[in-house]
Amino acid sequence: MRTVHIGLIGLGTVGAGVTQILAQHAGHFRTRAGVDLKLSRVADRNEACFSAVDLPADRCHTDWRPVIEDPEIDIVIELIGGTGVARDVVIAALDAGKSVVTANKALMATAGKEVMDHAAARGVDIAFEASVGGGIPIIGPLKHSLTSNEITSVMGIVNGTTNYMLTRMAQDGLDYDTVLAEAQAKGYAEADPTADVDGLDAAAKIAILASIAFNSRVVMDDVPVEGIRSLTSSDIDYASDMGYAVKLLAIANRTDSGVDIRVHPTMIPVDHPLAGVNGVYNAIYVVGDAVGETMFFGEGAGSGAAASAVMGDVIEVARHISQDCLGIVGCTCTDELPVRDIADLTTGYYVRLLVSDEPGVLASVATIFGHHGVSIASVIQKYADETGAEIVYVTHEASEGAVRAALAEIEALDVTSAIGAVIRVEDL
Amino acid sequence: MRTVHIGLIGLGTVGAGVTQILAQHAGHFRTRAGVDLKLSRVADRNEACFSAVDLPADRCHTDWRPVIEDPEIDIVIELIGGTGVARDVVIAALDAGKSVVTANKALMATAGKEVMDHAAARGVDIAFEASVGGGIPIIGPLKHSLTSNEITSVMGIVNGTTNYMLTRMAQDGLDYDTVLAEAQAKGYAEADPTADVDGLDAAAKIAILASIAFNSRVVMDDVPVEGIRSLTSSDIDYASDMGYAVKLLAIANRTDSGVDIRVHPTMIPVDHPLAGVNGVYNAIYVVGDAVGETMFFGEGAGSGAAASAVMGDVIEVARHISQDCLGIVGCTCTDELPVRDIADLTTGYYVRLLVSDEPGVLASVATIFGHHGVSIASVIQKYADETGAEIVYVTHEASEGAVRAALAEIEALDVTSAIGAVIRVEDL
Repeated sequence: MRTVHIGLIGLGTVGAGVTQILAQHAGHFRTRAGVDLKLSRVADRNEACFSAVDLPADRCHTDWRPVIEDPEIDIVIELIGGTGVARDVVIAALDAGKSVVTANKALMATAGKEVMDHAAARGVDIAFEASVGGGIPIIGPLKHSLTSNEITSVMGIVNGTTNYMLTRMAQDGLDYDTVLAEAQAKGYAEADPTADVDGLDAAAKIAILASIAFNSRVVMDDVPVEGIRSLTSSDIDYASDMGYAVKLLAIANRTDSGVDIRVHPTMIPVDHPLAGVNGVYNAIYVVGDAVGETMFFGEGAGSGAAASAVMGDVIEVARHISQDCLGIVGCTCTDELPVRDIADLTTGYYVRLLVSDEPGVLASVATIFGHHGVSIASVIQKYADETGAEIVYVTHEASEGAVRAALAEIEALDVTSAIGAVIRVEDL
Repeated sequence: MRTVHIGLIGLGTVGAGVTQILAQHAGHFRTRAGVDLKLSRVADRNEACFSAVDLPADRCHTDWRPVIEDPEIDIVIELIGGTGVARDVVIAALDAGKSVVTANKALMATAGKEVMDHAAARGVDIAFEASVGGGIPIIGPLKHSLTSNEITSVMGIVNGTTNYMLTRMAQDGLDYDTVLAEAQAKGYAEADPTADVDGLDAAAKIAILASIAFNSRVVMDDVPVEGIRSLTSSDIDYASDMGYAVKLLAIANRTDSGVDIRVHPTMIPVDHPLAGVNGVYNAIYVVGDAVGETMFFGEGAGSGAAASAVMGDVIEVARHISQDCLGIVGCTCTDELPVRDIADLTTGYYVRLLVSDEPGVLASVATIFGHHGVSIASVIQKYADETGAEIVYVTHEASEGAVRAALAEIEALDVTSAIGAVIRVEDL
């Protein structure tokens, strides 16, 4: 059995999970999967990480280049993240004829084509299951078991931080700032929570999933994104009263006019499979023309889960190396679908307005909605006092462009203090 | 691009789904997956099926042998089912050097080793994703994305018929006979519902999943099985009052003393991911040492779903043929774990007794449980009238052997009219 040599670049939490799996299960991989994996070199800017790795000092590097330059190394695992050094590492490794396994969602969602082209040019594998949904197998199923389908929809709860926060707001009535502080204290959210709460992390992940599901490259910049900062627990309560859960969904639909892709807080019926996915869990819901509805659920983050996906890819690539079968499934973006403008979206809208409590306010707002062809399904005025009134509208299906135009006019009314929240309502 | 020729044996509902996918998407498979698939021959005992296939009459056969004997055919799809003719077809096809894709759970759960050995001897692929969970990708993820894990548990709702029946009993309070008749009228249950309601279908599926998850062959005869015939809607109501859902679960756990495997009605906490899987849907819940909890959800039956899985396998095998890479992942049963006796099981038990309403009954029953070391967590006496009394016991964790011995003694008491139901309680 040929030994497959691995170079690991980036020894953070996922890297530590990878070394742990290798240490515990390398024997199993030989007997059960027929691959002999050997960790040959590691690199990290922080020397302190090397103590956790059972390698001599001359195989632990603070520079990544010696890993790429070692001709013996077959597979490079890139766990640096981001699109700076990580991009250089991945491209250099591929150009050196090494297969690459990465968890890097930002890289794959921005430079996916470039990376895929370098892999194809050298006939090696690039695998990135860990870039979406932590340990949940989703890229594998989309590229293999579900390939016979025309996938019509992929939507997911792909950010555990925000799902934890929304779950706490929904179940315990806590406000945004409290749950953010709690998520930070528990290590679920970073000190700068922007990537999570503003939906950027989710946008990268849905760009990757849509590219695979629809066989057409979508990049992160194609994804209109709204985060959860403006949500209040009262929005979640109103939604609950109406039979909906509020989730930060990453949504991609194949439509006749192109790929409809977006990330935003979304009201979904409480009996939808995604509505019951709570806490830090992730889930990706996929609809195909033959398979119908499917959903993939699991831990979306954490050292073990992400390392499970990385090592699953490593074993797969090592099998290909051992049997001289690299490059079986490369880039699958063979079509060129346009990305639809979000102004062309048609869905329901929940709108919470803060207005002064004056006669004629309801009439003014209704007139504006009507003028833009936006039909109102329900109105709730929850309170009115000296500070003003809070009014919640839910529209029938309307176009995003029309709703946005109406809201711009409503916001300009003297009586409007603020548009509190706008949540799209998907009656899935 | 080399054309991969397919022979399809069995033109029932799944076969019709397969021909439909091929007719609709063969062009996509060429451009997106790089495989050129051509349906070359079909066979079915019923000539009437041939009208649905776009093939000349001399390529439609009432005997399966001409399909196997055609040297041009690369992949044989076996959709006959069962272990009679289907076994001959699969073995003959493999021996003729053809790869085989099958949806046959009974064959893989009884003669899996034999089939795998024939495939290995000729260096061809045998793929059977459709044998478990309809269109849900589960065998693929277990053999690929999750390979780096030591899987500790696989449990699933893998029979849509019984899940539909239990859902109707739970949500609408209907009795067993009513929901069975309804399931038969809707085409979810067969005229002879034995394989579904007695748990045999689920037993075959969990044997297949356990074999893959634990790298150790488990056959259908290894699986102790209890069906849902004795359940009443009052059992489901009692369970609901106690915070549990009742599901027919197929369970396999890796334990220090071997593989714990069984199929039986099970009470699981209502907040467990499997508890919310209702109607004809299936779901398989998998726990791995690195990945943690995952779940795979979707349509467990139906022409389109099963055909999706079959064609996913066909595309995978065709890629291997096109790139001369057959046999990358063959049999993974490299270990030989013992299968644990169900008498060694330790879990909670729900026991519904029908007894005469006489003084001393509770004491007699309690004494017997106590004598066998079975500790009672709760007792509910729902009614008592001239026909007798119904008493529900829930035990603390106890051994199956002790509970069975106690129940044998309790059943022999003069005051006992019947043991209404025994449901294992899993506090997952």
